[in-house]
Amino acid sequence: MDALFTEIIAIVGGQHLLVGDDVHARRDDWMQAAPCRARAIVRPADAEQLSRVMAACHRARQPVVTHGGLTGLVRGGVASPDELAISLERMNQIDAIDPISSTLTVQAGTPLQRVQEAAAEASMQFALDLGARGSCTIGGNIATNAGGVRVIRHGMMRDQVLGLEAVLADGTRVSSMNHMLKNNAGYDLKQLFIGSEGTLGIVTRAVLKLQPQQLAMQTAMVACETFSDLTALLQFVRKTLGDQLAAFEVMWHSHYALLTEESGRHAPPLATDAAFYVLIETLGNDQDTTAQRFEAAIETAFENGHINDAVIASANHQRERLWAIREDIEGLLCHLNPRFTFDISLPIPEMDHYVRTLEQQVIQRWPDGRVVVFGHLGDGNLHVTIATGNADDDTKLAVETLVYTPLAAMGGSVSAEHGIGLDKRRYLHVSRTPAEIALMHTLKKALDPHTLLNRHKVLPDAAP
Amino acid sequence: MDALFTEIIAIVGGQHLLVGDDVHARRDDWMQAAPCRARAIVRPADAEQLSRVMAACHRARQPVVTHGGLTGLVRGGVASPDELAISLERMNQIDAIDPISSTLTVQAGTPLQRVQEAAAEASMQFALDLGARGSCTIGGNIATNAGGVRVIRHGMMRDQVLGLEAVLADGTRVSSMNHMLKNNAGYDLKQLFIGSEGTLGIVTRAVLKLQPQQLAMQTAMVACETFSDLTALLQFVRKTLGDQLAAFEVMWHSHYALLTEESGRHAPPLATDAAFYVLIETLGNDQDTTAQRFEAAIETAFENGHINDAVIASANHQRERLWAIREDIEGLLCHLNPRFTFDISLPIPEMDHYVRTLEQQVIQRWPDGRVVVFGHLGDGNLHVTIATGNADDDTKLAVETLVYTPLAAMGGSVSAEHGIGLDKRRYLHVSRTPAEIALMHTLKKALDPHTLLNRHKVLPDAAP
Repeated sequence: MDALFTEIIAIVGGQHLLVGDDVHARRDDWMQAAPCRARAIVRPADAEQLSRVMAACHRARQPVVTHGGLTGLVRGGVASPDELAISLERMNQIDAIDPISSTLTVQAGTPLQRVQEAAAEASMQFALDLGARGSCTIGGNIATNAGGVRVIRHGMMRDQVLGLEAVLADGTRVSSMNHMLKNNAGYDLKQLFIGSEGTLGIVTRAVLKLQPQQLAMQTAMVACETFSDLTALLQFVRKTLGDQLAAFEVMWHSHYALLTEESGRHAPPLATDAAFYVLIETLGNDQDTTAQRFEAAIETAFENGHINDAVIASANHQRERLWAIREDIEGLLCHLNPRFTFDISLPIPEMDHYVRTLEQQVIQRWPDGRVVVFGHLGDGNLHVTIATGNADDDTKLAVETLVYTPLAAMGGSVSAEHGIGLDKRRYLHVSRTPAEIALMHTLKKALDPHTLLNRHKVLPDAAP
Repeated sequence: MDALFTEIIAIVGGQHLLVGDDVHARRDDWMQAAPCRARAIVRPADAEQLSRVMAACHRARQPVVTHGGLTGLVRGGVASPDELAISLERMNQIDAIDPISSTLTVQAGTPLQRVQEAAAEASMQFALDLGARGSCTIGGNIATNAGGVRVIRHGMMRDQVLGLEAVLADGTRVSSMNHMLKNNAGYDLKQLFIGSEGTLGIVTRAVLKLQPQQLAMQTAMVACETFSDLTALLQFVRKTLGDQLAAFEVMWHSHYALLTEESGRHAPPLATDAAFYVLIETLGNDQDTTAQRFEAAIETAFENGHINDAVIASANHQRERLWAIREDIEGLLCHLNPRFTFDISLPIPEMDHYVRTLEQQVIQRWPDGRVVVFGHLGDGNLHVTIATGNADDDTKLAVETLVYTPLAAMGGSVSAEHGIGLDKRRYLHVSRTPAEIALMHTLKKALDPHTLLNRHKVLPDAAP
């Protein structure tokens, strides 16, 4: 056993340095079944141990990959055989809840759902929500600036973080555990670690903002004939429902028809001949007034001609049935197999033209090709799935080129919420200028001069 | 004339390099009447000119100070005779408004009020609001991460910025003009320039988020007997009024009594014997339901015993009269002269004890001393004014020590919204750890290795 391992065992204890089969028995990527190939997995008990482990790795120039819940979609957790994986699984406690300041202090390895539950027990709520809630961790949510289905109302993970603590590449522990909404004393260092996917430091703890609990929920699915109806509807509900608007999730006809009529997986709540279907949801604190306001808004949208069909969920099982169509990713993936999936953002006014052009180009090249689109329209975020009948590298490259190339001219993004990881590194330049990428390298070099943290992730390798 | 001036004139034209009396005729600090002492003032027409000016300054190792509206309160705009001031006053256009994406694109030298007006003309609103709206600029709002009276609802300036463009110390123009709510393609570089007070780059343009217009306004002033009533009230209105809650501004008895009974400047709308007075305001989109909801909440707060007196403004002139007491900073300053003013934040549960202790210590040391307190309670932000009858440096140091020292133990901040500038640099260590300040220096060194941007501002001078 080499000197570094001996040193790490002295810090974390022998049972928390996993090697050999204990490593290979784990996976480090949600999408792939391949075993973890890391040199070893270290499980520090707390930030102090992590700090000492990183100091040792720094001296030994040992590169590391941080593991949270490993639910990412861009291979950000994949470790190569010369890398050490650092799992935060033992750092999973909620340290405190302060109902007066509406804050919750938590260790980075804690699953999102535990935070949501703890907030609810204190009659508050934590704003972030996404499908992987049971497995994904707060540290991962921070490192990837997670999005999800409530962004239109509460923003992304970045907006939920008041303070955090991180361990730098050399083991320095930087505590910025701010608890206050306002703090302009010097640089807001936490921003460095939010959304940088573990390449600038390892987040160990955070102070999160909580919201007042809003239990009065209203849900409808509506149909729109044209994209301009759809954007008029978005503007109208934004204005009318104000901050109660909690979701505005759009399914293109391609998505809705596939998951209802075509696949038979869901009974269609609305006729399948419309161009767009929207799940609209509001959250408020008074059942009666929230319901009145919601129904009045849907009625007016009808009268204004923004929508031509609608169903309002009158009970929870109806709400669940409506959401099930939107959230049936499994159905989508198994009916479009093999396929390529994308998570892009672009200015809302450009979306209609973008999707139509993409559909034409796919059909032109692969006559049996399919383009299925849904997304968080209010956030400018589309999830696009493309099936061409083939999954080889050439096809992948061709499809990626069709999807990503037009984004550059319209200021769109190759990653709205999933991040860059290993998978999208080669397309970073589509969304960011050479000056921006150079500045990212400047930051990376300043904070991690020996490239020890999540090597080859996010940034293209620097010019020598 | 030296070579640098010749070079700058070739870029901006002779009439836009001010020297001599044209410089001294200007002030560079709102609080002080002293003339600007900069070596010269340069007024670039656009980011391209600014980029070339900065490249020239970089080659000549010429330090610069950026001037926006110069309404700051921490001497961030003060230039010394060896520094060049760069005024963004000619970069003052609104470039575009997109009602579908709810965004506004603006040059950095544009006054805040112009942005508010442009948003209103497009039937939307810009969330940031503060007293200096007519003079302060968007670039200054971004550089200082401005706060103001709507933070409890919409957050600070950081939360309003989707994208920006900045010029670095070496003249590199970095355009991160993102227009979308979601963009996780690489590091979120704009965060570097928000709240770093011009020490890492000069902001030239920005994409701002707009909100739906909310015209239905309700305002009340209420009185609370104890601090625990006050925090119970805050929790109650947060829960009941939800996101309609737009202001929760607290005046300690010291503030209210001074500006009403004692000074005779304002007729007291409520008896002057309560411990705390709160201005509560909601913004909604329907006058009737907003009013009903507001009145019901005030009534319930009464029944619950959180408040023991209240007045609801039934017309706009009444609303203005209530706000006039809270906003009469002139009255406050002229009745407490000389005095020292502070802008701190601290965890809400600590506030009562903190203020009581401070009052005791001031009276103990200066028997005629006064401590007057008001603040944005929901944001954890207090504005404290202390008069001891004296304004000399020793008194200043003694008062600052009393105010700042206790903040360290409770994780408070020496600057909630005004920033650090020159004035609070020596107290940065109260709110930030040595590891944090070291990391700030790392960033400063990476982005501005020759210390050309706003020298001696924000950070303590680095150890040699």
